[in-house]
Amino acid sequence: MLFGTNNQMHGTLFCFVWQIAMIILFGVFIRYDEESDTHWVETKAHDNITSDIENDFYFRYPSFQDVHVMIFVGFGFLMTFLKRYSFGAVGFNFLVASFGLQWALLMQGWFHSLDPQTGKIFIGVESLINADFCVAGCLIAYGAVLGKVSPVQLLVMTLFGVTLFAVEEYIILNLLHARDAGGSMVIHTFGGYYGLTISWVLYRPNLNQSKRMQGSVYHSDIFAMIGTLFLWMFWPSFNSAITDHGDGQHRAAINTYLCLASTVLTTVAISSLSQKTGKLDMVHIQNSTLAGGVALGTAAEFMISPYGALIVGFFCGIISTMGYIFISPFLEKTLKIQDTCGIHNLHAMPGVIGGIVGAITAAAASESVYGKLINTFDFTGDFKDRTVLTQGGYQAAGMCVSIVFGVVGGAIVGSILRLPIWGDPADENCFDDEVYWELPDEEEEHQESIPPILEYNNHMIHKQQDL
Amino acid sequence: MLFGTNNQMHGTLFCFVWQIAMIILFGVFIRYDEESDTHWVETKAHDNITSDIENDFYFRYPSFQDVHVMIFVGFGFLMTFLKRYSFGAVGFNFLVASFGLQWALLMQGWFHSLDPQTGKIFIGVESLINADFCVAGCLIAYGAVLGKVSPVQLLVMTLFGVTLFAVEEYIILNLLHARDAGGSMVIHTFGGYYGLTISWVLYRPNLNQSKRMQGSVYHSDIFAMIGTLFLWMFWPSFNSAITDHGDGQHRAAINTYLCLASTVLTTVAISSLSQKTGKLDMVHIQNSTLAGGVALGTAAEFMISPYGALIVGFFCGIISTMGYIFISPFLEKTLKIQDTCGIHNLHAMPGVIGGIVGAITAAAASESVYGKLINTFDFTGDFKDRTVLTQGGYQAAGMCVSIVFGVVGGAIVGSILRLPIWGDPADENCFDDEVYWELPDEEEEHQESIPPILEYNNHMIHKQQDL
Amino acid sequence: MLFGTNNQMHGTLFCFVWQIAMIILFGVFIRYDEESDTHWVETKAHDNITSDIENDFYFRYPSFQDVHVMIFVGFGFLMTFLKRYSFGAVGFNFLVASFGLQWALLMQGWFHSLDPQTGKIFIGVESLINADFCVAGCLIAYGAVLGKVSPVQLLVMTLFGVTLFAVEEYIILNLLHARDAGGSMVIHTFGGYYGLTISWVLYRPNLNQSKRMQGSVYHSDIFAMIGTLFLWMFWPSFNSAITDHGDGQHRAAINTYLCLASTVLTTVAISSLSQKTGKLDMVHIQNSTLAGGVALGTAAEFMISPYGALIVGFFCGIISTMGYIFISPFLEKTLKIQDTCGIHNLHAMPGVIGGIVGAITAAAASESVYGKLINTFDFTGDFKDRTVLTQGGYQAAGMCVSIVFGVVGGAIVGSILRLPIWGDPADENCFDDEVYWELPDEEEEHQESIPPILEYNNHMIHKQQDL
Repeated sequence: MLFGTNNQMHGTLFCFVWQIAMIILFGVFIRYDEESDTHWVETKAHDNITSDIENDFYFRYPSFQDVHVMIFVGFGFLMTFLKRYSFGAVGFNFLVASFGLQWALLMQGWFHSLDPQTGKIFIGVESLINADFCVAGCLIAYGAVLGKVSPVQLLVMTLFGVTLFAVEEYIILNLLHARDAGGSMVIHTFGGYYGLTISWVLYRPNLNQSKRMQGSVYHSDIFAMIGTLFLWMFWPSFNSAITDHGDGQHRAAINTYLCLASTVLTTVAISSLSQKTGKLDMVHIQNSTLAGGVALGTAAEFMISPYGALIVGFFCGIISTMGYIFISPFLEKTLKIQDTCGIHNLHAMPGVIGGIVGAITAAAASESVYGKLINTFDFTGDFKDRTVLTQGGYQAAGMCVSIVFGVVGGAIVGSILRLPIWGDPADENCFDDEVYWELPDEEEEHQESIPPILEYNNHMIHKQQDL
Repeated sequence: MLFGTNNQMHGTLFCFVWQIAMIILFGVFIRYDEESDTHWVETKAHDNITSDIENDFYFRYPSFQDVHVMIFVGFGFLMTFLKRYSFGAVGFNFLVASFGLQWALLMQGWFHSLDPQTGKIFIGVESLINADFCVAGCLIAYGAVLGKVSPVQLLVMTLFGVTLFAVEEYIILNLLHARDAGGSMVIHTFGGYYGLTISWVLYRPNLNQSKRMQGSVYHSDIFAMIGTLFLWMFWPSFNSAITDHGDGQHRAAINTYLCLASTVLTTVAISSLSQKTGKLDMVHIQNSTLAGGVALGTAAEFMISPYGALIVGFFCGIISTMGYIFISPFLEKTLKIQDTCGIHNLHAMPGVIGGIVGAITAAAASESVYGKLINTFDFTGDFKDRTVLTQGGYQAAGMCVSIVFGVVGGAIVGSILRLPIWGDPADENCFDDEVYWELPDEEEEHQESIPPILEYNNHMIHKQQDL
Repeated sequence: MLFGTNNQMHGTLFCFVWQIAMIILFGVFIRYDEESDTHWVETKAHDNITSDIENDFYFRYPSFQDVHVMIFVGFGFLMTFLKRYSFGAVGFNFLVASFGLQWALLMQGWFHSLDPQTGKIFIGVESLINADFCVAGCLIAYGAVLGKVSPVQLLVMTLFGVTLFAVEEYIILNLLHARDAGGSMVIHTFGGYYGLTISWVLYRPNLNQSKRMQGSVYHSDIFAMIGTLFLWMFWPSFNSAITDHGDGQHRAAINTYLCLASTVLTTVAISSLSQKTGKLDMVHIQNSTLAGGVALGTAAEFMISPYGALIVGFFCGIISTMGYIFISPFLEKTLKIQDTCGIHNLHAMPGVIGGIVGAITAAAASESVYGKLINTFDFTGDFKDRTVLTQGGYQAAGMCVSIVFGVVGGAIVGSILRLPIWGDPADENCFDDEVYWELPDEEEEHQESIPPILEYNNHMIHKQQDL
């Protein structure tokens, strides 16, 4: 239907119409919040704020930029591992994220921060972080279908994905009042099951026709490590970006830092064990090392304690690597779920673990450890009578909501994507940039790379033929 | 004359003499400002500052580091797209930027912040950002002549470029009192026309002799995407790095974030439309997606409103991509301007748009939206009687100044660079790292990469020859 | 013994046992400090802190993230230059750093911040930076033995390296009360000599058997530039990460920024001079450009003045590049030290220079320049009678300590690593990822890359054979 399928007008129209709709909706609904508005000087005076440095910008902007890098470089490059789908990995990731974050600002605004008096959504740096988070859910889902869908299918996936995200997030964070600052449930569990279910609906029985494209080459694996490392390094910023000012952000960063270090060791241990020769598998290093960050998404801001963070990382490295070794083949063979990037092992499972860890940690909270529980769990207003035990229950309920939204939403959206109008690639063209990208003509380079001896032989052959 | 042209003494001498001159001039003129001096403790007491966190370092250092990444990784890697000029792209970018930023600190210091009492220039983190900005103008110009000039020509270009930059910046920001925090005019318009004019003066009619080198290969395009993405992600920091503390930085970041997201969608739309097959062109994705950031350089700090930012991005994506499709070939054929990286589409045109957007936004400012206009436009001192309408006029005048400086300066510097003493590469050696770099010997690797069957054939041929 | 040597159980066990030990030790010793604990709200009240923004997190977290990038992407990618050891470079760097930072938190905690009352180590963002710093020393050492040791040897090197580091750091910073915020002595001198001595003990006379692997290819050199640039750009953060709040961090960043710019120019000058053709050598650009950052590690926080920083950079560029040209071959031939990455030129020598620069700058300090010397040199408590001259002496003594620890420690650890139990690669397998990694099967790609004409020839040959 668009981008490389001889009918580009539809694709172009889709982008134009959508972007114009965004402009109109932003014009109607979106305004600067009081900290990014020129009236900030009056706000400051009113709130007795003595310095510009107390603008939320300075609390959150460095974390925002780290998250931004994770979304565009992290997710984008993590998926470049395929030998001939790197353009699609990094390019469609770029397109989808830019598309999704605008819609996310609107959807999240309507659900979370629509001002009832003015009917406006007021945005600041925290809104940008939340929009990036929302998009992350869809990019996770992209990992499951990488190389098997058209860019327009990705846009549709993202359109619905962002919508579903905003609703489940509203239910989990606002109605259930669960805490999930780093999004174990809201982002990773939802995104993981959403992508897996879509991939299940779009099952391709003859995908082995493009088997020659389903591997990496040496340098594409290095490119993927750029993605891995930026995700890994900046994950402490991800989990602390929207936690409470002060000790909240501080603690979330420390916990995530520790958890991820622990994950690397157990990932390497299991990866080496998985091969008869004891060699390491790049797929595990690229992916499973990140599972700890996912699994600490909920509990990072809690007093899980440093050794608690290490324990979570310890098990996640094991489980995620085991997932690549045992569960992914099982999912593909038995459940007919083709999961290109193994998001089940990197996001879905660790996300569920994260939800459980969060529920347990919350339920085990005590005033002796936390001081006033109000500060961390925000037991105010409608929730002022909540105990940590019920909070633990609501956390668990939140996780179920995210799974349900992922699976049911994925099934519906998958069905829509099965309609034969989206220009998805044929089985033999999967994982091939050729379908959607003008590729550089590499023949000349290869000509040059022929060693002299072969050129000589060429010459000889021609001479022989002449004879 | 130097670097790879058998007369390296000149190049080495140039670097040494210049660096020693820098040391002497820094010794005479440059000092720490009061926020980076050990006397800060007294400054604090004097200014009633209660906390170290109000040191300007904490307001601007995260943005500075983002800008720094844009200069060295962003610009450097964006130009690695050529199949055999990646060393030159990233290496000369590194050299030129390191050379230029020292000279920029002096030039900008003399023009903007020379203390009349002491005759010293006092530098702090904002000076570093400004030096990086100044260098950016020259790196933009580098994009037009990429692969066609010698490193010593680049150094000369940068030497004059930084000098011209400091003067035009002084005229635009100080004399005309125009606002241009993200440098649509001062950086991008100037740098764009400076580079294009130099490229015009250095026109090579027989450049097609190096046609075989003028393309990308698959992995060089991925390297270029590293540059693209770091520029794209950190552009909000670029446009907000030196804006007012508090809401000023906050708003500039939000506007740029939104504008760039919108640009991606229209870039993709037009790129797909440009090919009969509807496929996407990596050149557009690598470059035009950034045009929105350029075009919001002036207005990012204004109350352009979120939907206004989206509109700017919308049109910039269209115009910049159209530029690659229609205007670049026209410039080359008709105007004899060979623009290797298409800086006309990425910097010059969007820069002019940015200047116009800035002028209009300023002229349309009102107290009802801005609160006290004094805060944003700094209508104090000599400029206390200015109205927004005259401000709009001065903004427009500023844009003209930047164009004039770019074109006239470029013509003069281009003429200097035409002197036959700079060791520029022959037409057939353009876009080839071989001229200036010791390249790794790759033959062996290719030997290894010969598939077994071919080696067998080799063997057979020799046997046949023996017969 | 593990990872690719058919006996993976040992390696896996090592990782598991170690990680479990970490969990137990963290459980016993490590707690959140008061700024990352939920009781921060009470701490604030007690200390009359008015805003969360004064939490140390906001002073140091942006610098921490930059340092984190240097450790994982900077060091990791800098070592990817070898044509077939990029997996090992970036992958083992990842493993070693994750392993080392946990041990570093414990070791540094016991030596520097064990609370005598509670017997606990309280950690915050500054602890994370210090752990990263500690790991940096071991990663420097990794550079000397890159490609010649097994991963388990690396882990052993890191285990002892971190231990030695914590002790020498305690002696230098606490007992001698030397200042070394950017670690010229503590990190670079120690790490450099530690690695060089180990490499000397592990001397391989027949290393030329793997000569075919000891070079770069075009794209591996570009990957290495990613490492170089992120190290170069973020070095101001490295040297300022743990300096005093306010002017201390501000000044350290400015000094490092200037010093590194100067280094680039003299590196290029000498590199061009070194080749008969005047061409540039990528090895110098990748490494020597960073020497200035190393050499300013001690003095960056002092009032060395901007031109002083330029002077340091000037000489470091020269010396480091000269080192690659003259000293490295001498070390290898005469002293039998095989230094894969040239850490002698990038870390050991510039580290010593940094120690000397620090000692001189400290000895030359005066109240007229520094205001109260107490603020910079912390002449309080046991050290309240110290003069700048004695401080200079103690700085020099500190440098000697770091050299002694590097050499003696390296000799001991090297001897341990010579035991024939660690599964190090055979001489002909050095610098080859094949030994420890499952590599992608690239044959197919090469098949594809055969130009049509050759395939035709193939065909012809077969036909001829048939004849």
